[in-house]
Order: sequence, then structure tokens, then C-alpha cells
Amino acid sequence: MTTIETVRRSLVLRRRPDGEPRSEDFSMVEDPIPAPGAGEVLTRTLLLSIDPYMRGRISGRASYTPPVAIGGVMTGESVGEVLASGDKGFAAGDIVVGSRGWQTHSLSKASALTRVDRNAVPLGAWLGVLGMPGTTAYSGMTDIGQPTAGETVVVSAASGAVGSVAGQLAKRVGCRVVGIAGGPAKCMWVQEALGFDDCVDHRSGDLPRALREACPNGIDVYFENVGGLVQEAAFGLLNAHARVVMCGMIAQYNAAEFPAGPNLGFVVGKRVRIEGLIVSDKPERFAEWRALATPWLRDGSLKHRQTIVDGLENAPEALRQVLTGDNFGKMLVRVG
Amino acid sequence: MTTIETVRRSLVLRRRPDGEPRSEDFSMVEDPIPAPGAGEVLTRTLLLSIDPYMRGRISGRASYTPPVAIGGVMTGESVGEVLASGDKGFAAGDIVVGSRGWQTHSLSKASALTRVDRNAVPLGAWLGVLGMPGTTAYSGMTDIGQPTAGETVVVSAASGAVGSVAGQLAKRVGCRVVGIAGGPAKCMWVQEALGFDDCVDHRSGDLPRALREACPNGIDVYFENVGGLVQEAAFGLLNAHARVVMCGMIAQYNAAEFPAGPNLGFVVGKRVRIEGLIVSDKPERFAEWRALATPWLRDGSLKHRQTIVDGLENAPEALRQVLTGDNFGKMLVRVG
Repeated sequence: MTTIETVRRSLVLRRRPDGEPRSEDFSMVEDPIPAPGAGEVLTRTLLLSIDPYMRGRISGRASYTPPVAIGGVMTGESVGEVLASGDKGFAAGDIVVGSRGWQTHSLSKASALTRVDRNAVPLGAWLGVLGMPGTTAYSGMTDIGQPTAGETVVVSAASGAVGSVAGQLAKRVGCRVVGIAGGPAKCMWVQEALGFDDCVDHRSGDLPRALREACPNGIDVYFENVGGLVQEAAFGLLNAHARVVMCGMIAQYNAAEFPAGPNLGFVVGKRVRIEGLIVSDKPERFAEWRALATPWLRDGSLKHRQTIVDGLENAPEALRQVLTGDNFGKMLVRVG
Repeated sequence: MTTIETVRRSLVLRRRPDGEPRSEDFSMVEDPIPAPGAGEVLTRTLLLSIDPYMRGRISGRASYTPPVAIGGVMTGESVGEVLASGDKGFAAGDIVVGSRGWQTHSLSKASALTRVDRNAVPLGAWLGVLGMPGTTAYSGMTDIGQPTAGETVVVSAASGAVGSVAGQLAKRVGCRVVGIAGGPAKCMWVQEALGFDDCVDHRSGDLPRALREACPNGIDVYFENVGGLVQEAAFGLLNAHARVVMCGMIAQYNAAEFPAGPNLGFVVGKRVRIEGLIVSDKPERFAEWRALATPWLRDGSLKHRQTIVDGLENAPEALRQVLTGDNFGKMLVRVG
């Protein structure tokens, strides 16, 4: 016999973090579980997605979307189960994905939710390898990186939710793929499980030299997730006509001020293309990628890895870990 | 009655310049005028083109083409007149354009020369507005900048051989075009003769503020010829989905070490595309541009300006002026 839940818990932003986000930057608030009106769907949260971009949402800086307001529910993608629906497109028991926020129960417009097959893949995959991060990797490689067989592709944060997919896509094209990751455990997984040709540990000494040795023919595509010294090492090896997929610069997300960057003279002489990517600009890529990658996930040819933390109250700590690299693979919080 | 010339004079690189190039970095050498063999064409030089990229050719740095060797004839485009031909495609009296070097007479492979109409346009136009600089502007705007009507386009070194064409092309598309140039005379010409909507003098105080006031809707396309503080001011105003045509960074061409550049975090959030351009990658653009622009030049709707210095021996000083901005418009040296 299940207890009927009547209270919703939500994490709201209490203050903007100074450096790494901490639990004290958020407050847990309770209110009654709402009832759905016409066109609305009530869901309970099963899994929250924790992603690096969220640091930008809680900073005071202007960005491509407005930040979360102080006192506002923290935003984020999640998988939920429909409890009650005011829209004929959804029924109780459906599994849905959407931007539902850091809360145990959400009221969403039906148009903001995507129903997924409960049994097709593990539910976390809808937030990682088949979700926003996987689609980001797919769009970044397809729309910007455009690697061709025989080229050298370097991916930073290679064991992460985006990097792991980006590198596997380049392997499918027939590239030499070199990862950059933090620590021997991640590097081993990147090489042995994901099948990258090499992986350089950016924590082990002379990164520029190690990367140069791993890329004897230079770099044709650099998929950037990190910034800082990792970016500097990769930029130093770019070939003529190289493409740089600017997906993220996680090394500076907790910083109050940004360090200077590269002198861009090489961009002219080497005819490099450096291009930024926000996957929501290409909404059509989401369904495309799910259709393409679901069979690969089911036949085992597309690998992924996730870390699941229990309890909504631990979402801030999970975000801290994602930003410092203390996580491994796609970070999820189990709420249900 | 003309004197029969028998001696060829050539400027060879004596040493790599330290900072600004000087006459003493070159030596004038003489040798007998050669006779053309089969497939070769002997020409006498009329006009030399002096362009910023030449500084890279005499530095010791690796670049997209090998540098001029110490003791080697300085390379460069020029207009010449055919004196004798070992190829049936050319005859004495033909006017040709090609990379013929800093010398009074050149022996070229016929395939390396393009014959032009002596009477169609002033001969200097083949080296400036209709030549490599004009084609660079055309390719940069067409292949990378891709401006659309109503967008704001900013062009640095706006009175130069490349910038003046780049901005006029954007005006033809229907953009708001803002130039950046050094000093009131250049700015006045850019606005009044070229028809740019505004021109900011980068030497007159607060460039970031002046540029912001000239670009109330931000910048959609930035055509980069300068680098340094000019780049910093323009990058600070880039809109979402802006394109940066990286054509040159003349501010640092005489520098021994390059300064740090911009932190690239904005490239992600704003989905900016920054792309380098070397026009020789797109050889088909040269004939395309000549065909497109020659009527505009003849009907007066495409404006250009040139400075002509007399005497081969003054080519190094002309190059120094181009690099410091002491020139105005396309720099040419009259040799013949």
C-alpha cells in the first residue's frame, strides 16, 4: 500500500554562489502538490539531470537565457512519471522528459514534455546519452566539427556526458580520436570502454607534451568542453583548416573573473574555424539523435556511464562535483 | 628613342627585421636581364603591390607559406608589361598581373600570369580593388561574414585596400556599416566617399565607448584586419550568432611576441563563429570578383583609393608605412 503524497518539495536558489556551488546556496521549500488544469500535466520526478551549464543559470552574469531568480525553483531537465493529466496526449503512468526543475513534483504544459518508452533504455539515458548532452555532442560534430576519416579529433572532458559521445561519433567516422580527462581511472575507461585511440590525463604533468605525442599529425577537430590550460594545449596543435567546437569551458564556470585567452593570430594563418554551440538552437537535432542512437545504445555499440546520487537535497553537491570533475560520467540525482 | 635596358635590379632580403621593416633589411642586387625559355615570359615591372601579409614572409615564424630566404628576392604581386615571350599565350606589350617579386624585370611561367585589359581600369586597380585585397574582402564577406540586410557590420582598417571593399560590399547588402580607422582624414573618407554609416577613430580616446555608440544594436559581422585593442572593443559588442572574419591582425605584425587574447567563453554563450581566411585557398574567387566588380568600378559605384610611391628602392619604406598605418588606401610602388 502506497502512502498518498500531498507535499511537494522544491529546491530554490537562496543566493548566488561565490565560487563552487554549495548546499547552503539553496533552500528546500514545501508546498501542496498542485492539480493540473486544462493542457497541464502533473508529474512526479524520478531522475534529475545535473549539467555544467547550470552554473551559468545561478550566476549573476547575463547569458543566453535569463538566470534563475533568487527564490526561484532551480531549473533543469528530468525524467518524471505522469500522476494526473489535463491533456489528452498524456495519461497517468506515462514516462516523460522535460525541463521540470529541481522539485519532487512538477506541473508542466503538455507541449513542454516528451513521452518516452519506459522499457527501451535505462531511464537515465534520456537525460544523458540520448538527451541534451548526447544531442549536444551530435550537433557539435555534425554541424561544426565535420570530421572525416583519417583526421585527428581531440575531445576534452572525454569521460563526460558530452565528450564520451562526441569521441565515439568521431570513431564511427574513422578518425584518430584522442581524449583528455582527469585522472587514470577516467582515461582508462575512455580508452578501453569507449575505444578512443588514446587519452591524456591533464593532471599528470606536461599536458602540452603528452598531447603532442598523442597527436603526431596535429589536431583537425577539437571538441572543447574545458578551456584554460587544456584549451591552450589543444590550440597549440591545431592544423590548417581545423575546426573547434566550442561547447563549454567548465574550468572557469566557478570563477569570478575570466582569465585572458589565446592570441588569435593563428586563426588567420591556419584558417581555423572556432564556433560556439548551444544545442537548443537546433531543436530538430534532438529527435534525429534519439532515432539514430537508440539502436546503437541497445546493441551496445554506443557506450555510456552514469553516476546516480540519491535524494533531491543532494542536487547542489552533485552540481559541485560536476563542476570540479569529481564525478564520473553522466551525473543524475534520483528523486522518486 | 628608348635606351635598351640590360640590367635587372632586385631587392633581396638581407636580414629578418627586428620590429618595423627598414630599408637596411634589404639589399639591391643587379644581374643581367634574363631571356625567356620555352613556356616562360619576360616582363618589366610597372607597379608593385605592398600588402601587410608581406611582414609574415620576412619573419622567421612558420606560417602558411615558407618565408623568403635570406638572400632571396622579396615576393609580391605586381603589374608588368611583357617584353618577350616563350609562350604563345603572351606577346610583347601585354599587361599581366602575377606574383613577380620586388624586381625591375621578372621571368615567370606563363601559367603564373594573368593578362589584363590595359584600358579597362587604372592599372593599380588590378593589385588593389580588383586584385588580392579586393578578392579577400569579397571572399571574406561571401564565405564567412554572410551579412544580411539590417545587420550591423563593423570593419577595422576601414580605409585600407581590404576594409574599404569589405564595407562597401556590406552596404550593397543593406547593412548598417561602421568602420574603424586611424585619424580624422581616413574616417572622413570612409564615411563621405565610401558611404559607411559611421566611422570610429581608434586613435581618439575611448574606443569601446565610441564603437558602442556607433553600434546601438551590437555587431553581427566583424571583419577583422587589426587585432589588439580594436579587436577587444569589437568582440565586446558581438551579438548572438555573430560572425568574425579573421582576415588579419596588423597591430601585431611587427611584434616579437604576441599578447594574450580574449577569453573565449563568449563564443559558447553567443554561438559566435570566428573563422580565418587566406584568399589563395579559394582561387576561383579571383575571376568571380573581377567579373563582378569591374562594372562597379567603371560606373563609379565601387570606390577605391591608392597611394603610389616612386622607385623600387622605396618598397621597404612603403611596407613600413602599410604596417604602421602611415599610408592611406592601397599602397603601390611605381617601378617602370
